[in-house]
Amino acid sequence: MITRQEVNAARQKAANILAQTGVVINQAEIDRMEVVDFGLSELEISGAQILTLVDTDQIAAKLLVMLPYQTEPEHRHPRLGDYPGKEETIRCEWGELYLYGPGEPARSPKGRPPDHRRETYTVWHEYVLRPGDQVTFQPDTPHWFQGGPEGAVIWSFSTKVIDVQDIFTDPAIQRETVIVD
Amino acid sequence: MITRQEVNAARQKAANILAQTGVVINQAEIDRMEVVDFGLSELEISGAQILTLVDTDQIAAKLLVMLPYQTEPEHRHPRLGDYPGKEETIRCEWGELYLYGPGEPARSPKGRPPDHRRETYTVWHEYVLRPGDQVTFQPDTPHWFQGGPEGAVIWSFSTKVIDVQDIFTDPAIQRETVIVD
Repeated sequence: MITRQEVNAARQKAANILAQTGVVINQAEIDRMEVVDFGLSELEISGAQILTLVDTDQIAAKLLVMLPYQTEPEHRHPRLGDYPGKEETIRCEWGELYLYGPGEPARSPKGRPPDHRRETYTVWHEYVLRPGDQVTFQPDTPHWFQGGPEGAVIWSFSTKVIDVQDIFTDPAIQRETVIVD
Repeated sequence: MITRQEVNAARQKAANILAQTGVVINQAEIDRMEVVDFGLSELEISGAQILTLVDTDQIAAKLLVMLPYQTEPEHRHPRLGDYPGKEETIRCEWGELYLYGPGEPARSPKGRPPDHRRETYTVWHEYVLRPGDQVTFQPDTPHWFQGGPEGAVIWSFSTKVIDVQDIFTDPAIQRETVIVD
């Protein structure tokens, strides 16, 4: 749960970061940017600001703004009936992103999930993405990421998005953010 | 057919335009940018410079650079067996794009296809795209576009790409560009 004021403040911070990237965004797009707290009510620790540019029955293209050290919690995009699940390429446009998936764990990972949720982060193979770097995850692959010291702007190019069906490792998470006045 | 020298010159022009956009591209990506003449051997009139960022079995994300008044000829992405054909969102990042698809024809279109190929352009509903504007085409929809006075940089977010299966209205077109030394 977050307040309308928190949403507006996060959107403004995200807009300020986006303005540094050179990627052109309409005001109407800024105004509808989604601010997500994953139901954890600690937006600047666990959260994301998401601008959806394309969202059809087939594909999606999104810009995500991560505030400094803000973390998108570990999750995966599962198979749903005939749909094999969301395949996703994450490409860094600005800043630095600490991205984790399955594989050999990093010995000294740069990303630090919130201490009180540490056990809900299970994959530790590290990709440090800087502008122009990208990684593709097959459907149903657990992953999580965190913005670097200045935050990050990343592209998500993917197949069809069904966010509410995402499976998060942390059972406390609710994908739909509740906003209160 | 174009020469290696023409390819290099077009790639350099495209890189110079891309450098104005603020979208971050790696040098390795610039080096593999595709220069396409559609087999018409008049690259600066009919052609495109294409940088593929994502190309999986499911989706694609590309940046296209159109030189001033350069035209990508009319084409469509047909159904192929079980695949319904490429669905594509075209989003302007920089410059101005004159984009055409089916619908009420423009009375005074801004785009001007090459006079000697005029009869191979059959759809004239006009979209003038400026940075942040976008249009989505369903599979198998004929469309064509032309860069404005300074050219254009556009995103193409789409389902799976099978370029060589594209159907062009102009029978003179070959999708695979032949490069000679």
